[in-house]
Order: sequence, then C-alpha cells, then structure tokens
Amino acid sequence: MAIEPFDVVDLIRTKRDHGILSTAQIDWLVDAYTRGYVASEQMSAMTMAIFLNGMERSEIRDLTMAMIASGKTMNFSSLSKPTTDKHSTGGVGDKITLPLAPLVASFGVAVPQLSGRGLGHTGGTLDKLESIPGWRANLSNEEFFSQLENVGAVISAAGSGLAPADGKLYALRDITGTVEAIPLIASSIMSKKIAEGTAALVLDVKFGSGAFLKDITQSRELARTMVALGEDAGVATSALLTNMNVPLGFAIGNANEVRESVEVLAGGGPADVVALTIALAREMLALAGQPDADVEAALADGRAMDTWRAMISAQGGDPDAALPVAKETLVVTADRDGVLVEQQALPFGIAAWRLGAGRARAQDPVQHAAGIDLHAKPGDTVTAGQPLFTLSADEPERFERALEALDGSYRIGDFGDPVLDGGPLIAERIGA
Amino acid sequence: MAIEPFDVVDLIRTKRDHGILSTAQIDWLVDAYTRGYVASEQMSAMTMAIFLNGMERSEIRDLTMAMIASGKTMNFSSLSKPTTDKHSTGGVGDKITLPLAPLVASFGVAVPQLSGRGLGHTGGTLDKLESIPGWRANLSNEEFFSQLENVGAVISAAGSGLAPADGKLYALRDITGTVEAIPLIASSIMSKKIAEGTAALVLDVKFGSGAFLKDITQSRELARTMVALGEDAGVATSALLTNMNVPLGFAIGNANEVRESVEVLAGGGPADVVALTIALAREMLALAGQPDADVEAALADGRAMDTWRAMISAQGGDPDAALPVAKETLVVTADRDGVLVEQQALPFGIAAWRLGAGRARAQDPVQHAAGIDLHAKPGDTVTAGQPLFTLSADEPERFERALEALDGSYRIGDFGDPVLDGGPLIAERIGA
Repeated sequence: MAIEPFDVVDLIRTKRDHGILSTAQIDWLVDAYTRGYVASEQMSAMTMAIFLNGMERSEIRDLTMAMIASGKTMNFSSLSKPTTDKHSTGGVGDKITLPLAPLVASFGVAVPQLSGRGLGHTGGTLDKLESIPGWRANLSNEEFFSQLENVGAVISAAGSGLAPADGKLYALRDITGTVEAIPLIASSIMSKKIAEGTAALVLDVKFGSGAFLKDITQSRELARTMVALGEDAGVATSALLTNMNVPLGFAIGNANEVRESVEVLAGGGPADVVALTIALAREMLALAGQPDADVEAALADGRAMDTWRAMISAQGGDPDAALPVAKETLVVTADRDGVLVEQQALPFGIAAWRLGAGRARAQDPVQHAAGIDLHAKPGDTVTAGQPLFTLSADEPERFERALEALDGSYRIGDFGDPVLDGGPLIAERIGA
Repeated sequence: MAIEPFDVVDLIRTKRDHGILSTAQIDWLVDAYTRGYVASEQMSAMTMAIFLNGMERSEIRDLTMAMIASGKTMNFSSLSKPTTDKHSTGGVGDKITLPLAPLVASFGVAVPQLSGRGLGHTGGTLDKLESIPGWRANLSNEEFFSQLENVGAVISAAGSGLAPADGKLYALRDITGTVEAIPLIASSIMSKKIAEGTAALVLDVKFGSGAFLKDITQSRELARTMVALGEDAGVATSALLTNMNVPLGFAIGNANEVRESVEVLAGGGPADVVALTIALAREMLALAGQPDADVEAALADGRAMDTWRAMISAQGGDPDAALPVAKETLVVTADRDGVLVEQQALPFGIAAWRLGAGRARAQDPVQHAAGIDLHAKPGDTVTAGQPLFTLSADEPERFERALEALDGSYRIGDFGDPVLDGGPLIAERIGA
C-alpha cells in the first residue's frame, strides 16, 4: 500500500476554515480523487467548502493544471495552420458554434471544437447537429486531425481522455448543488480547453436571467479568471460578456437551430445571431493572427457556407437533407395590440426542454424536432391575433407543461413602455 | 416507485444560499438519507453547508426530532423511580461517569447511561469499564430494565436502534471534516439522549485546548442549544461548562481511570475529579427532585461504593479483581526545581492514545493497561529528579511517539510565574 502524503480530512478542514491549499495538496487531491482513494462524499464536502469560501487565483490555477494532468492532452503542432477555438457558458437559443466554426475555418485556420451534449435547459451543440441525417459526433483521432487539416472546422464529441478528473467532478457537483462556483466552473472549462491544445481561445461568457450566472459581476469575475488561466497556460485567450436575458435568435431547440444557423451562413438570419457570430469570429481570427479578416464578406459570398457543407459531409451528414419536423405544433398569438416588452430567456429554455428538446438525465435521448420558434422579439410591434411563437413537439401532451413554464414570461406593453431586454447584446470584452 | 416530495439538490442549494429548511424538508431529508435515497455525497455537501452557514434554532430542533423518528425510543415509565442521566462532550482523563452513575443511583434514582467507545484521543466509558475482568457492556433489554430497577445504575452500550440516522450521519461527518458544527453536535447528542427516554439530563460541556470545541463562546452556544432542545422535548436539562485545558485527575487511560474512580468512590481521589463528580451529581439529583441530597456523605460513608460494586457485579464484573498492569513503564522526571505551570490536556490525550489507550479505527481494540499517570498537577511545587508522570504501555516501542506528542506540552517555571490552567474547573451553569 502506498503511503499517502496528505490526509483528505485535513485538506477539507483547511478549506472549510478559509485556508489556502498548496500546489502539492491540490495535485494530490485531484489525483487521489481520480483513482478513488478520496471518496465522493469527501470531495463533495470539499466542493461545498470551495463554493462557500472561494479559492485564491493560485489555487484555481493549481486545480486546473491538476485536472489537465489527470488525463491526456492533444497537440496540434503537426497541423499546417493555427488553431483557434470558442467556448460558450451556454444560453437559450445559443447555436453560435454552428455558423461560427465554418466561418472562422473559411479563413484558413483550424477550429477544433470538442463539444458536449446538453443537460438541463441549455441544449448541446452535438444534440443540435445530430438532427442532420447521417451526421456523427464521434471521430477517430485520425479522422479528427485529417478533417482539421482539410476542412478546418470540426465539431465533435470530447472523448473521456481529456481531463477525466473534471468529468468525474462535474458529475458530482451536478448532484450536490455545487455547480455555480466560479473557481469550479473556471477550472472545469479551462482544463478541457487547455488539454485540447488550442493555441487561441475566445470565451462567450453569458450573463442575465437565462445564463448560468445571472449577475454580470459574477460573469465578469468568471471571464477574468478564465482569461488569466488561459494566459498562464500559454493559450491566447479573450472573452466577451454577452446578454442572455432574452433568447438568442428566433429558434430554440435542435433542428430549428440548425435551420437558423444555415440562414446565417447563407447571409441572412436574425440580427442578434449574426452580430454575435461576427463578433466572436473577429476575436478568434484576431487571436489567430488575422485581425483584419472581413468576416461579413465570408458570410455574404458563400465561403462560410462552403466550409459548413464540407464540415457536415466530412462527418457523414447530408447538408441538403430535410431536417426533422415535429408531429404537433401549437401557435400562441398576441392578445392585444402593442409592443413586445419582455421575453425571458429562462422560461423559454425550460419550455423547450419540456417539449423534448433537452434531457433531464445524461442517458436520455433528445427529440430533434421539438422546440420553440419565436415570431417576435422584444421591441417589436405586434397586433392582436398575430402569432408570437410556435411550440413544436412529437407528443401533444407536452404542450401543457411547456405553457406553464411560459406563464408570465412574456408581455405586451404600450408604445413607449421600456423594453426589458437587459441592454446591449455584447456588454464587455475582457482580454489583452 | 414512490414519488419523492423534495429534490435534495434544491434543499442543498437552500442551505448553501443561507436559506432556512422547513420541518417537512428536514423530516424528508433525514428519512431519505436513512433509507439511502439521498446519497452520502449529497448529505456531506449538505453538512458542509450547515457547518459554514449554520442552522436556525427551529431547524436544529427539526433535525433532532427527525433523527429520533428514524429509530426506536425507550420508555422508563414502568420503573418505580425517576430517571436522570449525564452526557459529557469528552475530555482527557474524563472518567466522571464511573463514580457519578453509582453515586447518583445511591439516592434511589435510576441512571440509564448508554455510552460509546472512544475514537480519537478521548477514551470511551465502555473501554474503561472493560478493563474490569468479566464486565460486559452489552445487555438485553430485560437485563437493562431489571438492573435499572434493582441497582439503579447501568452503564451499557447504546444499541443501534436509537436514532440510527445519527449513527450514519456521524460516520459521514467524521470522514468529511464536518464534526465540529454546533447544530450537528447538538442534534447528534440530543437525539440519542431524548430517544433514550431519560426524564432529566445534565450536560458536561467542555471547553479549552483538550476539548472538542476549544473556545468557551462556542461551548456556551452548544450548551444553550442542547438545553433548549432538551426543554423542548420535555426533558429537564441543564449544563455545566467545564475546563478541559488540563487533564482531569491524575489518570489518563483505561484501567488506571477505573482505579482512580474507585478511589473517589472510597472517599478519596483527586480534588478536581471529586469536585466535578459532586457538582454533576447535585445537578442530576436536583433535576430528579432531590435538590438537597448530601452527595459528599454518600461518597464518605460507602453508599456510592456499594452501588458501584452492585453495578459492576450485575454486569458480570468482579469489583475485587486485580486490574491489568502494563508490561512496560517509563517515568519522566523534573529537570529543575520550580512550579509546574503548564500541562496541556490535548498532548497528554494524544500521548495516551499513542501508548495504546485509544483507537484510530472503530474496529481496533484498546490496550487496557496503557496510559499515563500524572504525579503533579499545574500549580504544584516540584524538585529536580521528582517523577512528573509515568507512561505505561505493553509495547515499549510506543514510548517514543508518545514522548514526541508531549514535547513542549508541560513546563516547570519559577515561583510566582502564572499557572496556565485556563481558570476554574467549573466556569458556568446553564439551565433553568
């Protein structure tokens, strides 16, 4: 039996009593937890102590590095082009990765997007793409590198090999009420992205009622923490703080979000989705050495669309195939004339989830055609009887609970009433 | 499958965010944890949140009642005499239960002491008594009630039937760094004592360097919380706050603590052990309706000793048998003339533990003859070469680590130097 250098109860007590854990202590803790010597009930007490007492910047960096050291890392130095990636903390209607990855890749850089599936009300990028007939998320290492070299954009499932300690810890946090802690969120996201080996990284950190962290102060702290972690690890990193008080775009679901993404790639699409796609593309390209890239042109002239089609085809998908359509729809209309002054992201996200677009447990399937299509956005003038949004589901009995979630979540006011959209879409940029 | 009325993650989040749990929520939590629906890792996150954010008085009462409801309760109404009991939060050299139970029982009241075994540096009452040849801790229900009626004093092992949720929760707290939380200590102690069914209860709440809670402010808060819990449950309850900065009496161990207890029952014994035994006996008898009982007389005239002999005999022990003696001893002497100004309880407790008097794991045995006998107490004048204390062990290789624990823990000063004993033995009384 190996002699353990630390007693986990001492480490828990240190954090419980507002102490600072050393690099050696954190390295040991993560390693001992990964190999099962530290029990789940001990780690959950530790994460609650971290949640409530916080961590110093040095501890967060140590935790991130220890989680990276728990698994494999990737290395893109063999590619002929630079790598740049994006991570979003997740929001309602956030399909930005879909148009963004091929748009950026169309400038000759590599975008190695390792994504996840959705859990809770924010859908996962892989779930959305799996609504395309034939498309598959799992690629071999050879396929991944080959597509990155030849197409530039890859969106695929993150294997369990990168930062496995994070996977184990995230599952624990999910059932113990310790998800929303900045040190734990920052180290979770950055351990995977640093292990992935991207040279540059842009973070889309959401704030507002539909976001993970509601308060912009917390989102700013998270963004700053992650940018510092990236810089410390030699990854060129910046972040945008973006508004998640209202759903992003018109489509919330899976297949409908793919449809909306294709509209953007065709030079159209909702103004907010286009604006955020362009802003993030500029950041990613600037960090990859192309600060002056004309990203609007690549959307307008079809270059981004060409890369999209190549990316989907390379992963077995048919970019021309019809996307699934739900068996049942229910249209909700305006009950008066006026202005749509409120449309809260979180209830729309929960409603889409209840319609079948999301999953409650990791092993559940999603229903690709389920979701919500908005027909008006905050600030729009509406007339009585006009459709406000359409619910789609395969099982009509899901409508009732979805409508319950939406009760009080949108409101038609008078002309001149303030529009409660939480301000501009892009609030701040953080980074060098 | 039963529908669960609450989501444990919601309850953890409530406590995490400084909220108050309702009676129904706490009842469900304890029940669901006892039956295994709430997982250990969820409960440990909850206990850390309780540790750091505290609990309202109402929540502590609800937690106590829910733990009582998790198992059986005892009922002494069939006895011909009133019941009164004592609980100590534990200290170094604390053998008070041994002389106290027969002393109080000699006044015609019943003392149903359900005790535990020691874990860590504070020994368990059952471990001490098991150094008496033939004595057994486990009694049937019939034996327990019969001895209570006929002898008055019983010291026996608490079965797992009383407050089983507490047993499960305590084991979890022990490995997750959440032992020293007042709401959890108070509900743990009081759930067992209330379930035991005693009509009256005196709490000996220790403070000082050798105690569970070092700070008298915390001990006072614990005592007040427990007295209120007892009163709420209809148990006449009071508490003494007593000093645990120096070891209690001269003997620290098992057999030697029995020897010292017998000295007290014979009318002798160390002044501090006698004083605390008398103070607690008066409290217990006052709560049982005998405020004017002459407890000194019962020690002086042999009545307490008679009850002791009857109590030991009734449980198979031979009160006249020789107690075990250690194979090896090591005497530590004074290196100068002067006054013993310091003798810290915790290092002496740890040293006795390392000599074999205590256990590290619940399943380990203790060595009954191992321990420490003090020959001087703080304030005593000593001369160079005079024995200060004797270490006893069956295995001489244990002396070295015991001496390490004692390094710097005692000090001989000059005449007139302040004696660092932390003040009077009995600091405060709390109760009606």
